[in-house]
Amino acid sequence: MSDAIQSRLKELGITLPQAAAPAANYVPYVISGNLLYLSGQLPMENGKVAVTGHLGRDVDVAAGQRAAELCAINILAQASAALGGDLGRIRRIVKLNGFVASVPEFVEQHLVINGASNLLASVLGDAGKHARAAVGMAALPLNAAVEIDAVMEIA
Amino acid sequence: MSDAIQSRLKELGITLPQAAAPAANYVPYVISGNLLYLSGQLPMENGKVAVTGHLGRDVDVAAGQRAAELCAINILAQASAALGGDLGRIRRIVKLNGFVASVPEFVEQHLVINGASNLLASVLGDAGKHARAAVGMAALPLNAAVEIDAVMEIA
Amino acid sequence: MSDAIQSRLKELGITLPQAAAPAANYVPYVISGNLLYLSGQLPMENGKVAVTGHLGRDVDVAAGQRAAELCAINILAQASAALGGDLGRIRRIVKLNGFVASVPEFVEQHLVINGASNLLASVLGDAGKHARAAVGMAALPLNAAVEIDAVMEIA
Repeated sequence: MSDAIQSRLKELGITLPQAAAPAANYVPYVISGNLLYLSGQLPMENGKVAVTGHLGRDVDVAAGQRAAELCAINILAQASAALGGDLGRIRRIVKLNGFVASVPEFVEQHLVINGASNLLASVLGDAGKHARAAVGMAALPLNAAVEIDAVMEIA
Repeated sequence: MSDAIQSRLKELGITLPQAAAPAANYVPYVISGNLLYLSGQLPMENGKVAVTGHLGRDVDVAAGQRAAELCAINILAQASAALGGDLGRIRRIVKLNGFVASVPEFVEQHLVINGASNLLASVLGDAGKHARAAVGMAALPLNAAVEIDAVMEIA
Repeated sequence: MSDAIQSRLKELGITLPQAAAPAANYVPYVISGNLLYLSGQLPMENGKVAVTGHLGRDVDVAAGQRAAELCAINILAQASAALGGDLGRIRRIVKLNGFVASVPEFVEQHLVINGASNLLASVLGDAGKHARAAVGMAALPLNAAVEIDAVMEIA
Protein backbone atom coordinates (compact mmCIF):
# COMPACT_ATOMS: atom_id res chain seq x y z
CA MET A 1 0.00 0.00 0.00
CA SER A 2 1.24 3.51 -0.66
CA ASP A 3 2.94 5.01 2.38
CA ALA A 4 0.69 8.08 2.31
CA ILE A 5 -2.48 6.00 2.50
CA GLN A 6 -0.94 3.76 5.14
CA SER A 7 -0.13 6.86 7.21
CA ARG A 8 -3.60 8.31 6.89
CA LEU A 9 -5.19 5.01 7.97
CA LYS A 10 -2.89 5.01 11.00
CA GLU A 11 -3.67 8.65 11.86
CA LEU A 12 -7.37 7.87 11.63
CA GLY A 13 -6.90 4.85 13.88
CA ILE A 14 -8.23 2.50 11.21
CA THR A 15 -6.98 -1.07 10.98
CA LEU A 16 -8.32 -2.83 7.91
CA PRO A 17 -9.89 -6.15 8.87
CA GLN A 18 -9.19 -9.41 7.08
CA ALA A 19 -11.43 -9.28 4.01
CA ALA A 20 -14.41 -11.57 4.55
CA ALA A 21 -14.36 -14.70 2.41
CA PRO A 22 -17.09 -15.34 -0.18
CA ALA A 23 -20.07 -17.02 1.44
CA ALA A 24 -21.84 -18.41 -1.60
CA ASN A 25 -21.81 -18.42 -5.38
CA TYR A 26 -20.96 -14.78 -5.43
CA VAL A 27 -17.65 -13.10 -4.73
CA PRO A 28 -16.58 -9.99 -2.82
CA TYR A 29 -15.29 -8.26 -5.95
CA VAL A 30 -14.93 -8.55 -9.70
CA ILE A 31 -12.41 -6.66 -11.83
CA SER A 32 -13.49 -5.83 -15.39
CA GLY A 33 -10.96 -3.81 -17.36
CA ASN A 34 -9.89 -1.02 -15.02
CA LEU A 35 -13.11 -1.09 -13.02
CA LEU A 36 -13.32 -2.85 -9.67
CA TYR A 37 -16.87 -3.76 -8.60
CA LEU A 38 -17.29 -4.46 -4.89
CA SER A 39 -20.16 -6.39 -3.36
CA GLY A 40 -22.41 -4.67 -0.85
CA GLN A 41 -20.59 -4.45 2.49
CA LEU A 42 -22.32 -4.56 5.86
CA PRO A 43 -21.08 -2.75 9.00
CA MET A 44 -19.05 -5.75 10.15
CA GLU A 45 -16.70 -5.37 13.09
CA ASN A 46 -14.84 -8.27 14.66
CA GLY A 47 -16.79 -10.69 12.51
CA LYS A 48 -20.31 -9.55 13.34
CA VAL A 49 -22.75 -6.85 12.25
CA ALA A 50 -22.01 -4.01 14.67
CA VAL A 51 -25.00 -1.74 14.01
CA THR A 52 -28.43 -3.28 13.56
CA GLY A 53 -31.98 -2.00 13.18
CA HIS A 54 -33.73 0.83 11.39
CA LEU A 55 -32.81 4.49 11.27
CA GLY A 56 -35.61 6.56 12.73
CA ARG A 57 -36.44 3.96 15.34
CA ASP A 58 -33.53 1.83 16.60
CA VAL A 59 -30.52 3.72 15.29
CA ASP A 60 -29.83 7.47 15.44
CA VAL A 61 -27.95 9.44 12.78
CA ALA A 62 -24.62 9.30 14.66
CA ALA A 63 -24.83 5.51 15.03
CA GLY A 64 -25.88 5.26 11.38
CA GLN A 65 -22.82 7.28 10.36
CA ARG A 66 -20.65 4.91 12.37
CA ALA A 67 -22.29 2.02 10.52
CA ALA A 68 -21.52 3.74 7.20
CA GLU A 69 -17.88 4.19 8.29
CA LEU A 70 -17.65 0.48 9.06
CA CYS A 71 -19.10 -0.33 5.62
CA ALA A 72 -16.44 1.94 4.08
CA ILE A 73 -13.67 0.24 6.08
CA ASN A 74 -14.87 -3.12 4.82
CA ILE A 75 -14.96 -1.73 1.27
CA LEU A 76 -11.33 -0.69 1.68
CA ALA A 77 -10.45 -4.10 3.11
CA GLN A 78 -12.00 -5.84 0.08
CA ALA A 79 -10.32 -3.39 -2.29
CA SER A 80 -7.00 -4.10 -0.61
CA ALA A 81 -7.55 -7.84 -1.11
CA ALA A 82 -8.45 -7.21 -4.76
CA LEU A 83 -5.41 -5.03 -5.36
CA GLY A 84 -2.70 -7.14 -3.76
CA GLY A 85 -2.67 -4.98 -0.66
CA ASP A 86 -1.94 -1.76 -2.58
CA LEU A 87 -4.71 0.81 -2.10
CA GLY A 88 -2.48 3.21 -4.03
CA ARG A 89 -3.81 1.48 -7.15
CA ILE A 90 -7.20 3.13 -6.58
CA ARG A 91 -7.32 5.95 -9.12
CA ARG A 92 -10.79 7.01 -8.17
CA ILE A 93 -13.80 5.79 -6.28
CA VAL A 94 -16.34 6.16 -9.07
CA LYS A 95 -19.67 5.41 -7.38
CA LEU A 96 -21.10 4.40 -4.01
CA ASN A 97 -24.60 3.08 -3.48
CA GLY A 98 -25.61 3.67 0.12
CA PHE A 99 -28.55 1.63 1.39
CA VAL A 100 -29.95 2.72 4.76
CA ALA A 101 -32.52 0.61 6.65
CA SER A 102 -35.19 3.22 7.37
CA VAL A 103 -38.62 3.63 8.85
CA PRO A 104 -40.83 5.51 6.37
CA GLU A 105 -40.48 8.77 8.33
CA PHE A 106 -36.68 8.83 8.28
CA VAL A 107 -35.42 11.15 5.52
CA GLU A 108 -31.76 11.80 6.35
CA GLN A 109 -30.15 8.93 4.46
CA HIS A 110 -27.70 11.42 2.93
CA LEU A 111 -26.37 12.38 6.38
CA VAL A 112 -25.91 8.72 7.28
CA ILE A 113 -23.95 7.91 4.13
CA ASN A 114 -21.73 10.96 4.73
CA GLY A 115 -20.06 8.71 7.31
CA ALA A 116 -18.69 6.62 4.44
CA SER A 117 -18.04 9.54 2.07
CA ASN A 118 -16.05 11.44 4.69
CA LEU A 119 -13.97 8.43 5.66
CA LEU A 120 -13.08 7.60 2.06
CA ALA A 121 -12.11 11.21 1.31
CA SER A 122 -10.01 11.28 4.51
CA VAL A 123 -8.14 8.13 3.54
CA LEU A 124 -7.80 8.60 -0.22
CA GLY A 125 -8.00 12.37 -0.74
CA ASP A 126 -9.44 13.48 -4.07
CA ALA A 127 -9.32 9.89 -5.35
CA GLY A 128 -11.87 9.09 -2.65
CA LYS A 129 -14.48 11.58 -3.88
CA HIS A 130 -17.27 9.72 -5.66
CA ALA A 131 -20.66 9.94 -7.24
CA ARG A 132 -23.27 8.30 -5.03
CA ALA A 133 -26.87 7.49 -4.30
CA ALA A 134 -28.25 7.35 -0.75
CA VAL A 135 -31.62 5.65 -0.31
CA GLY A 136 -33.87 4.19 2.39
CA MET A 137 -34.56 0.47 2.51
CA ALA A 138 -37.33 -1.59 4.10
CA ALA A 139 -34.69 -3.91 5.60
CA LEU A 140 -31.18 -5.24 5.02
CA PRO A 141 -29.47 -8.64 5.42
CA LEU A 142 -28.74 -9.70 9.02
CA ASN A 143 -30.67 -6.65 10.21
CA ALA A 144 -27.75 -4.38 9.24
CA ALA A 145 -28.51 -0.68 9.53
CA VAL A 146 -26.47 0.17 6.42
CA GLU A 147 -25.11 -1.59 3.33
CA ILE A 148 -22.81 0.07 0.78
CA ASP A 149 -21.42 -1.16 -2.53
CA ALA A 150 -18.85 0.54 -4.74
CA VAL A 151 -17.28 0.83 -8.17
CA MET A 152 -13.66 2.00 -8.35
CA GLU A 153 -11.31 2.86 -11.20
CA ILE A 154 -8.00 1.12 -10.64
CA ALA A 155 -4.50 1.20 -12.10
CA MET B 1 -24.87 21.88 -26.81
CA SER B 2 -25.94 20.43 -30.14
CA ASP B 3 -28.56 22.57 -31.82
CA ALA B 4 -30.97 19.65 -32.19
CA ILE B 5 -30.95 18.90 -28.46
CA GLN B 6 -31.19 22.61 -27.66
CA SER B 7 -34.26 22.82 -29.89
CA ARG B 8 -35.94 19.83 -28.34
CA LEU B 9 -35.39 21.20 -24.83
CA LYS B 10 -36.97 24.46 -25.99
CA GLU B 11 -39.93 22.71 -27.64
CA LEU B 12 -40.48 20.75 -24.44
CA GLY B 13 -40.33 23.95 -22.41
CA ILE B 14 -37.40 22.67 -20.38
CA THR B 15 -34.80 25.07 -19.00
CA LEU B 16 -31.91 23.24 -17.42
CA PRO B 17 -31.24 24.56 -13.93
CA GLN B 18 -27.81 25.48 -12.63
CA ALA B 19 -26.29 22.15 -11.62
CA ALA B 20 -26.37 21.83 -7.83
CA ALA B 21 -22.95 22.08 -6.19
CA PRO B 22 -21.53 19.14 -4.24
CA ALA B 23 -22.73 19.22 -0.63
CA ALA B 24 -20.19 16.95 1.00
CA ASN B 25 -17.27 14.62 0.30
CA TYR B 26 -19.05 13.28 -2.71
CA VAL B 27 -19.47 14.88 -6.11
CA PRO B 28 -22.33 15.15 -8.59
CA TYR B 29 -20.52 13.10 -11.25
CA VAL B 30 -17.39 11.12 -11.98
CA ILE B 31 -16.04 10.35 -15.45
CA SER B 32 -14.16 7.07 -15.84
CA GLY B 33 -13.01 6.35 -19.38
CA ASN B 34 -16.03 7.05 -21.57
CA LEU B 35 -18.54 6.41 -18.81
CA LEU B 36 -20.15 9.26 -16.89
CA TYR B 37 -21.57 8.25 -13.51
CA LEU B 38 -24.12 10.67 -12.07
CA SER B 39 -25.11 10.87 -8.42
CA GLY B 40 -28.71 10.22 -7.46
CA GLN B 41 -30.80 13.29 -8.34
CA LEU B 42 -33.84 14.43 -6.39
CA PRO B 43 -36.85 16.24 -7.92
CA MET B 44 -35.38 19.68 -7.22
CA GLU B 45 -37.08 22.73 -8.68
CA ASN B 46 -36.03 26.27 -7.85
CA GLY B 47 -33.65 24.98 -5.23
CA LYS B 48 -36.05 22.81 -3.26
CA VAL B 49 -37.54 19.32 -3.43
CA ALA B 50 -40.75 19.85 -5.39
CA VAL B 51 -42.49 16.52 -4.81
CA THR B 52 -42.35 14.94 -1.36
CA GLY B 53 -43.93 11.94 0.34
CA HIS B 54 -44.74 8.35 -0.55
CA LEU B 55 -46.43 7.00 -3.64
CA GLY B 56 -49.61 5.20 -2.71
CA ARG B 57 -50.39 7.63 0.11
CA ASP B 58 -49.20 11.23 -0.41
CA VAL B 59 -48.32 11.27 -4.10
CA ASP B 60 -50.33 9.91 -7.04
CA VAL B 61 -48.83 8.39 -10.18
CA ALA B 62 -49.11 11.62 -12.18
CA ALA B 63 -47.31 13.62 -9.50
CA GLY B 64 -44.74 10.84 -9.20
CA GLN B 65 -44.14 11.03 -12.95
CA ARG B 66 -43.62 14.77 -12.63
CA ALA B 67 -41.09 14.07 -9.87
CA ALA B 68 -39.31 11.61 -12.16
CA GLU B 69 -39.23 14.23 -14.93
CA LEU B 70 -37.64 16.70 -12.53
CA CYS B 71 -35.02 14.11 -11.56
CA ALA B 72 -34.29 13.59 -15.27
CA ILE B 73 -33.97 17.35 -15.84
CA ASN B 74 -31.49 17.53 -12.97
CA ILE B 75 -29.60 14.56 -14.45
CA LEU B 76 -29.35 16.48 -17.73
CA ALA B 77 -28.21 19.60 -15.88
CA GLN B 78 -25.44 17.64 -14.16
CA ALA B 79 -24.48 15.93 -17.42
CA SER B 80 -24.29 19.35 -19.09
CA ALA B 81 -21.97 20.57 -16.33
CA ALA B 82 -19.83 17.42 -16.73
CA LEU B 83 -19.65 17.78 -20.51
CA GLY B 84 -18.80 21.46 -20.80
CA GLY B 85 -22.37 22.32 -21.70
CA ASP B 86 -22.51 19.96 -24.69
CA LEU B 87 -25.21 17.31 -24.23
CA GLY B 88 -24.40 16.25 -27.81
CA ARG B 89 -21.47 14.37 -26.27
CA ILE B 90 -23.92 11.86 -24.75
CA ARG B 91 -23.63 8.79 -26.96
CA ARG B 92 -26.06 6.78 -24.94
CA ILE B 93 -27.78 6.76 -21.60
CA VAL B 94 -26.68 3.32 -20.46
CA LYS B 95 -28.58 2.75 -17.22
CA LEU B 96 -31.03 4.51 -14.92
CA ASN B 97 -31.82 3.39 -11.39
CA GLY B 98 -35.21 4.75 -10.39
CA PHE B 99 -35.95 4.81 -6.67
CA VAL B 100 -39.58 5.53 -5.75
CA ALA B 101 -40.64 6.23 -2.13
CA SER B 102 -43.51 3.78 -1.76
CA VAL B 103 -45.97 2.44 0.75
CA PRO B 104 -45.86 -1.38 0.69
CA GLU B 105 -49.08 -1.57 -1.35
CA PHE B 106 -47.85 0.65 -4.20
CA VAL B 107 -46.67 -1.49 -7.11
CA GLU B 108 -46.50 0.89 -10.09
CA GLN B 109 -42.92 2.12 -9.72
CA HIS B 110 -42.39 1.38 -13.42
CA LEU B 111 -45.11 3.85 -14.41
CA VAL B 112 -43.59 6.53 -12.19
CA ILE B 113 -40.10 6.13 -13.66
CA ASN B 114 -41.57 6.31 -17.18
CA GLY B 115 -41.74 10.05 -16.47
CA ALA B 116 -37.94 10.12 -16.63
CA SER B 117 -37.58 7.57 -19.43
CA ASN B 118 -40.02 9.44 -21.67
CA LEU B 119 -38.39 12.80 -21.05
CA LEU B 120 -34.89 11.50 -21.80
CA ALA B 121 -36.05 9.83 -25.01
CA SER B 122 -37.85 13.04 -26.02
CA VAL B 123 -34.73 15.14 -25.51
CA LEU B 124 -32.04 12.75 -26.75
CA GLY B 125 -33.84 10.41 -29.16
CA ASP B 126 -32.41 6.91 -29.44
CA ALA B 127 -29.37 7.98 -27.40
CA GLY B 128 -31.79 8.54 -24.53
CA LYS B 129 -33.09 4.95 -24.45
CA HIS B 130 -31.57 3.11 -21.52
CA ALA B 131 -31.58 -0.03 -19.45
CA ARG B 132 -33.15 0.62 -16.07
CA ALA B 133 -34.40 -0.69 -12.75
CA ALA B 134 -37.48 0.78 -11.02
CA VAL B 135 -37.91 -0.11 -7.35
CA GLY B 136 -39.87 0.96 -4.27
CA MET B 137 -38.06 2.50 -1.30
CA ALA B 138 -38.98 2.85 2.37
CA ALA B 139 -37.97 6.53 2.22
CA LEU B 140 -35.66 8.94 0.42
CA PRO B 141 -33.48 11.91 1.46
CA LEU B 142 -35.36 15.13 2.27
CA ASN B 143 -38.62 13.19 1.90
CA ALA B 144 -38.24 13.20 -1.91
CA ALA B 145 -40.80 11.07 -3.72
CA VAL B 146 -38.28 9.93 -6.34
CA GLU B 147 -34.49 9.70 -6.73
CA ILE B 148 -32.77 8.65 -9.96
CA ASP B 149 -29.11 8.03 -10.77
CA ALA B 150 -27.58 7.33 -14.17
CA VAL B 151 -24.64 5.98 -16.13
CA MET B 152 -24.01 7.45 -19.58
CA GLU B 153 -21.59 6.65 -22.38
CA ILE B 154 -19.96 9.85 -23.57
CA ALA B 155 -17.79 10.99 -26.48
CA MET C 1 -24.79 -20.76 -27.64
CA SER C 2 -21.80 -22.79 -26.52
CA ASP C 3 -22.58 -26.50 -26.32
CA ALA C 4 -21.42 -26.70 -22.69
CA ILE C 5 -23.83 -24.00 -21.57
CA GLN C 6 -26.62 -25.51 -23.68
CA SER C 7 -26.01 -28.83 -21.94
CA ARG C 8 -26.04 -27.36 -18.47
CA LEU C 9 -29.30 -25.52 -19.15
CA LYS C 10 -30.77 -28.82 -20.33
CA GLU C 11 -29.48 -30.74 -17.30
CA LEU C 12 -30.97 -28.07 -15.04
CA GLY C 13 -34.29 -28.33 -16.88
CA ILE C 14 -34.17 -24.65 -17.84
CA THR C 15 -35.74 -23.43 -21.07
CA LEU C 16 -34.96 -19.79 -21.71
CA PRO C 17 -38.15 -17.88 -22.43
CA GLN C 18 -38.57 -15.46 -25.33
CA ALA C 19 -36.96 -12.25 -24.10
CA ALA C 20 -39.70 -9.77 -23.16
CA ALA C 21 -40.00 -6.83 -25.55
CA PRO C 22 -39.35 -3.28 -24.31
CA ALA C 23 -42.49 -1.79 -22.81
CA ALA C 24 -41.65 1.90 -22.91
CA ASN C 25 -38.88 4.39 -23.64
CA TYR C 26 -36.40 2.11 -22.01
CA VAL C 27 -34.86 -1.07 -23.35
CA PRO C 28 -34.04 -4.48 -21.87
CA TYR C 29 -30.30 -4.03 -22.35
CA VAL C 30 -27.60 -1.62 -23.48
CA ILE C 31 -24.10 -2.59 -24.58
CA SER C 32 -21.34 -0.08 -23.89
CA GLY C 33 -17.88 -1.23 -24.89
CA ASN C 34 -17.57 -4.76 -23.54
CA LEU C 35 -20.11 -4.21 -20.78
CA LEU C 36 -23.70 -5.41 -21.11
CA TYR C 37 -26.16 -3.64 -18.81
CA LEU C 38 -29.44 -5.48 -18.26
CA SER C 39 -32.65 -3.89 -17.00
CA GLY C 40 -34.17 -5.13 -13.77
CA GLN C 41 -35.90 -8.45 -14.41
CA LEU C 42 -38.99 -9.63 -12.57
CA PRO C 43 -39.80 -13.29 -11.80
CA MET C 44 -41.80 -13.70 -15.01
CA GLU C 45 -42.98 -17.16 -16.03
CA ASN C 46 -45.29 -17.79 -18.96
CA GLY C 47 -45.79 -14.08 -19.40
CA LYS C 48 -46.83 -13.20 -15.87
CA VAL C 49 -45.20 -12.44 -12.51
CA ALA C 50 -45.03 -15.85 -10.86
CA VAL C 51 -44.14 -14.86 -7.29
CA THR C 52 -45.82 -11.84 -5.73
CA GLY C 53 -45.91 -10.22 -2.31
CA HIS C 54 -43.46 -9.48 0.46
CA LEU C 55 -40.90 -11.74 2.03
CA GLY C 56 -41.60 -12.16 5.72
CA ARG C 57 -45.36 -12.09 5.20
CA ASP C 58 -46.63 -13.49 1.88
CA VAL C 59 -43.57 -15.29 0.55
CA ASP C 60 -41.21 -17.65 2.40
CA VAL C 61 -37.48 -17.95 1.72
CA ALA C 62 -37.88 -21.00 -0.55
CA ALA C 63 -40.49 -19.23 -2.70
CA GLY C 64 -38.31 -16.12 -2.72
CA GLN C 65 -35.37 -18.19 -3.96
CA ARG C 66 -37.58 -19.55 -6.72
CA ALA C 67 -38.46 -15.96 -7.63
CA ALA C 68 -34.75 -15.10 -7.74
CA GLU C 69 -34.13 -18.09 -10.00
CA LEU C 70 -36.82 -16.87 -12.36
CA CYS C 71 -35.25 -13.41 -12.42
CA ALA C 72 -31.92 -15.03 -13.28
CA ILE C 73 -33.52 -17.07 -16.07
CA ASN C 74 -35.00 -13.88 -17.51
CA ILE C 75 -31.58 -12.20 -17.21
CA LEU C 76 -30.09 -15.06 -19.23
CA ALA C 77 -32.91 -14.76 -21.78
CA GLN C 78 -32.21 -11.05 -22.24
CA ALA C 79 -28.47 -11.67 -22.40
CA SER C 80 -29.07 -14.30 -25.06
CA ALA C 81 -31.12 -11.79 -27.08
CA ALA C 82 -28.35 -9.20 -26.66
CA LEU C 83 -25.62 -11.64 -27.71
CA GLY C 84 -27.19 -13.16 -30.80
CA GLY C 85 -28.17 -16.29 -28.90
CA ASP C 86 -24.60 -17.06 -27.78
CA LEU C 87 -24.31 -17.07 -23.98
CA GLY C 88 -20.73 -18.29 -24.52
CA ARG C 89 -19.91 -14.62 -25.17
CA ILE C 90 -20.42 -13.89 -21.46
CA ARG C 91 -16.91 -13.56 -20.07
CA ARG C 92 -18.07 -12.75 -16.60
CA ILE C 93 -21.16 -11.67 -14.73
CA VAL C 94 -19.71 -8.58 -13.08
CA LYS C 95 -22.47 -7.41 -10.73
CA LEU C 96 -26.00 -8.31 -9.67
CA ASN C 97 -28.30 -6.02 -7.72
CA GLY C 98 -30.91 -8.12 -5.94
CA PHE C 99 -34.00 -6.25 -4.77
CA VAL C 100 -36.27 -8.21 -2.41
CA ALA C 101 -39.74 -6.93 -1.43
CA SER C 102 -39.56 -7.19 2.35
CA VAL C 103 -41.51 -6.43 5.48
CA PRO C 104 -39.26 -4.51 7.89
CA GLU C 105 -38.63 -7.61 10.01
CA PHE C 106 -37.33 -9.76 7.14
CA VAL C 107 -33.53 -9.81 7.14
CA GLU C 108 -32.56 -12.76 4.92
CA GLN C 109 -32.39 -11.00 1.57
CA HIS C 110 -28.99 -12.63 1.00
CA LEU C 111 -30.52 -16.12 1.20
CA VAL C 112 -33.23 -15.14 -1.28
CA ILE C 113 -30.77 -13.78 -3.84
CA ASN C 114 -28.67 -16.95 -3.50
CA GLY C 115 -31.38 -18.47 -5.70
CA ALA C 116 -30.08 -16.34 -8.57
CA SER C 117 -26.39 -16.60 -7.66
CA ASN C 118 -26.54 -20.40 -7.50
CA LEU C 119 -28.38 -20.71 -10.79
CA LEU C 120 -25.97 -18.43 -12.64
CA ALA C 121 -22.94 -20.31 -11.26
CA SER C 122 -24.57 -23.62 -12.22
CA VAL C 123 -25.16 -22.48 -15.79
CA LEU C 124 -22.00 -20.45 -16.43
CA GLY C 125 -19.43 -21.86 -14.02
CA ASP C 126 -16.76 -19.42 -12.83
CA ALA C 127 -17.95 -16.85 -15.40
CA GLY C 128 -21.23 -16.79 -13.47
CA LYS C 129 -19.66 -15.74 -10.15
CA HIS C 130 -20.36 -12.09 -9.52
CA ALA C 131 -20.16 -9.21 -7.10
CA ARG C 132 -23.59 -8.37 -5.77
CA ALA C 133 -25.77 -6.39 -3.40
CA ALA C 134 -28.90 -7.87 -1.80
CA VAL C 135 -31.32 -5.39 -0.23
CA GLY C 136 -34.91 -5.18 1.05
CA MET C 137 -37.46 -3.00 -0.74
CA ALA C 138 -40.73 -1.44 0.37
CA ALA C 139 -42.38 -2.77 -2.81
CA LEU C 140 -41.63 -3.71 -6.41
CA PRO C 141 -43.40 -3.24 -9.77
CA LEU C 142 -46.44 -5.48 -10.35
CA ASN C 143 -46.11 -6.69 -6.75
CA ALA C 144 -43.11 -8.85 -7.72
CA ALA C 145 -41.34 -10.45 -4.77
CA VAL C 146 -37.90 -10.00 -6.35
CA GLU C 147 -36.26 -7.87 -9.05
CA ILE C 148 -32.65 -8.33 -10.20
CA ASP C 149 -30.52 -6.34 -12.62
CA ALA C 150 -27.05 -7.19 -13.92
CA VAL C 151 -23.85 -5.97 -15.53
CA MET C 152 -21.87 -8.50 -17.59
CA GLU C 153 -18.52 -8.39 -19.33
CA ILE C 154 -18.90 -9.76 -22.83
CA ALA C 155 -16.66 -10.84 -25.70
